[in-house]
Amino acid sequence: MLDCAIIGGGPAGLTAGLYTTRGGLANVTMFEKGMPGGQITQSSEIENYPGVTGEITGMDLMMPWPEQCQRFGLKHEMVEVKRVSQKEDGTFVILKENGETEEALSVIVGTGSTPRRAGFKGEDLFFGKGVSTCATCDGFFYKGKEVAVVGGGDTALEEALYLAKLCSRVYLIHRRDRFRASPNTIERVKKTENIELIVNACVDEVVGDAMGVTGVHMIINDGTLRQLDVPGIFVFVGNDVNNQVLMQEDGTFLCDMTESGEVIVDISMRTSVPGLYAVGDMRIAAPKQVVSAAGDGAVAALQAIAFVDEKLN
Amino acid sequence: MLDCAIIGGGPAGLTAGLYTTRGGLANVTMFEKGMPGGQITQSSEIENYPGVTGEITGMDLMMPWPEQCQRFGLKHEMVEVKRVSQKEDGTFVILKENGETEEALSVIVGTGSTPRRAGFKGEDLFFGKGVSTCATCDGFFYKGKEVAVVGGGDTALEEALYLAKLCSRVYLIHRRDRFRASPNTIERVKKTENIELIVNACVDEVVGDAMGVTGVHMIINDGTLRQLDVPGIFVFVGNDVNNQVLMQEDGTFLCDMTESGEVIVDISMRTSVPGLYAVGDMRIAAPKQVVSAAGDGAVAALQAIAFVDEKLN
Repeated sequence: MLDCAIIGGGPAGLTAGLYTTRGGLANVTMFEKGMPGGQITQSSEIENYPGVTGEITGMDLMMPWPEQCQRFGLKHEMVEVKRVSQKEDGTFVILKENGETEEALSVIVGTGSTPRRAGFKGEDLFFGKGVSTCATCDGFFYKGKEVAVVGGGDTALEEALYLAKLCSRVYLIHRRDRFRASPNTIERVKKTENIELIVNACVDEVVGDAMGVTGVHMIINDGTLRQLDVPGIFVFVGNDVNNQVLMQEDGTFLCDMTESGEVIVDISMRTSVPGLYAVGDMRIAAPKQVVSAAGDGAVAALQAIAFVDEKLN
Repeated sequence: MLDCAIIGGGPAGLTAGLYTTRGGLANVTMFEKGMPGGQITQSSEIENYPGVTGEITGMDLMMPWPEQCQRFGLKHEMVEVKRVSQKEDGTFVILKENGETEEALSVIVGTGSTPRRAGFKGEDLFFGKGVSTCATCDGFFYKGKEVAVVGGGDTALEEALYLAKLCSRVYLIHRRDRFRASPNTIERVKKTENIELIVNACVDEVVGDAMGVTGVHMIINDGTLRQLDVPGIFVFVGNDVNNQVLMQEDGTFLCDMTESGEVIVDISMRTSVPGLYAVGDMRIAAPKQVVSAAGDGAVAALQAIAFVDEKLN
């Protein structure tokens, strides 16, 4: 029986591992099928993780974490978790892809979320080299430059507003002529002088060279082609919360979720199920920043320690 | 007019400064009367800030933060803020100790909290060298050793339970014979085998050498003396939230607070007053960890950016 099972090995899961084990939980396993580090390891440059200076890659930023977080006894099992469920006595059951199960007194889930790809040519090739899915992370690298934003929902428009304060010009490319966003946000976008709307347009390809993106090729609905010379393109066409491990056999979720699939937590990362915590990009109102995800992990770990202690005494 | 005023220069305030300026707010000032870094700079050893490995001092941990957080344009004004208030049009007014005022569209307050001292001899001398006010931070350094805990409230008892999982023995020293804590917590403390209660006892002095604390001298209420040979003593005799800047001239607070003086915030660090955010140790349910405080700062900054943008457009 594990004191705590941690599902996911990004900044949130690793920090939860550090704090649970350093806080005295004897038997903690982090389940992460790949190398620990999370989505951030795909980023080519990070300069906003406090205390780590210089412009380093996401891979370099996360390099020391596994060793630091595992030196207090955290175990890492390289396996995919299929499902977390709960027995009648409250014990959690972790079902692994190989069909084996493991039991745990508490569970911290931090499986993140996955930004959807728009599907244009060059999107994967230039991801992290001019193609981004995070304005907070990468917007500053285009300060004073022109960028393109792809999408027409609330997130795309909000991120365009964020970028408009940093960039000389923001081209907002949307395949329809109407935006699916709150009227207030649409109004603000339209009133922002350096946001130019390009509607009824589909990105066909991003082009670039060894230094990264240099331009965007679009097909307008009337068949004409248009090209923008921009060094950055931000894609916001949806976000899939990686919540599959919380889905039960009957299709319901183990704990309360929002309609868009985020886990509902309180300020201490407690879900609607006692002993179950959600951290990082999968929880409601997630800022999707390494330092915040790590903060979540610490908070959830302290909760799990107290929960397990109370359960055992 | 400032886009954002940040009150306090600990991990939360510095990170808020990094994220607001890097996110495009042009005019942000952090008000911190002392050197930036916060309470953590008094700690002699930190090993649980993710990504910064090795056993370093709090001072060393915080060393690179000010430069990193100020390179995007954050200004630091070395002055004490007396009060944050709000005009009828929503603009915030920052009153400085020299009587000058400054106006701001948004305010992020992160002035921390101050653990009370118990008042025994040697407490200040050995603070950070065996005397601690944070079990999560320092408990692990006493793994397998005996420690003393001073206090009789909920925090003291919860921290004793936390330490009991790490330490071979925890002496819980309380000046009365009854505890002011929840019955459930008292029950769990009494059932924990390696917690020994020493009631009706006052710590008179901690003693030590160049390496740190070596023991505790107590006076029992019946006049007898008792001595413990322990390398660590944890003091939990209360915590003062540094919320004075939020107190208005009429004695009320600018935003909603708990009875114990913590600022009530939601999961995005929003207080009851739009445009006012509270971060770090002064907010409800604060885990009092550097990484969580920094996470708060990032979250609040993103909120402030959106708030200011909406206000100006």
